[in-house]
Amino acid sequence: MSESPVEAFDPPYYVAVFTTVRTEEQGGYRETNARMEELVKDVPGYLGMDHAQTPGGLGITVGYFRDADALTEWRTNAEHRAAQKRGRAEWYESYTLHVAKVERSHGFTRAAD
Amino acid sequence: MSESPVEAFDPPYYVAVFTTVRTEEQGGYRETNARMEELVKDVPGYLGMDHAQTPGGLGITVGYFRDADALTEWRTNAEHRAAQKRGRAEWYESYTLHVAKVERSHGFTRAAD
Repeated sequence: MSESPVEAFDPPYYVAVFTTVRTEEQGGYRETNARMEELVKDVPGYLGMDHAQTPGGLGITVGYFRDADALTEWRTNAEHRAAQKRGRAEWYESYTLHVAKVERSHGFTRAAD
Repeated sequence: MSESPVEAFDPPYYVAVFTTVRTEEQGGYRETNARMEELVKDVPGYLGMDHAQTPGGLGITVGYFRDADALTEWRTNAEHRAAQKRGRAEWYESYTLHVAKVERSHGFTRAAD
């Protein structure tokens, strides 16, 4: 999470786009989410994460990873798997996950006035 | 834009992840954004779009396209190019764009109680 978007890296790299609609049952969500944000930083090849949340609407989290191995390590992390399971049981009304290999990217930053 | 996320299609398909920080100068933004949301629907191979906006923070828009040709058509659309140019001049403090080919996807929808 950051004030400005994660940078556009040199391709190839991977994005995991996780789009959610949450339930009204959010007990424990915030703590678990914060823990996952810390835990993912230990994954070799993890590059960063952006998140946006429309109040009462969609949330989109985009994780950036150097390669497919990094994503596999994150996907199969035991603590992450437990969080995923709890998410399906309690926190998410619906979600989609799209894992994709970046072919092209660019960034823009406004010049200082 | 939708109440629930765009579905997880059968790969391969493309995602364009557009992450923004907006300026305080938002005159015309809403109208142009609405027009772009309509215009993109005319692109053959356009599959859908998800959007989330943290108030005062990051916005993330994810467009889904069947193939690279669909993305090229959208990127080079004259009206879209004019909107991009205005965005850099007025509306965006910073942004990143990541164009990526989806290799794996899945969706989850809570069973009705």
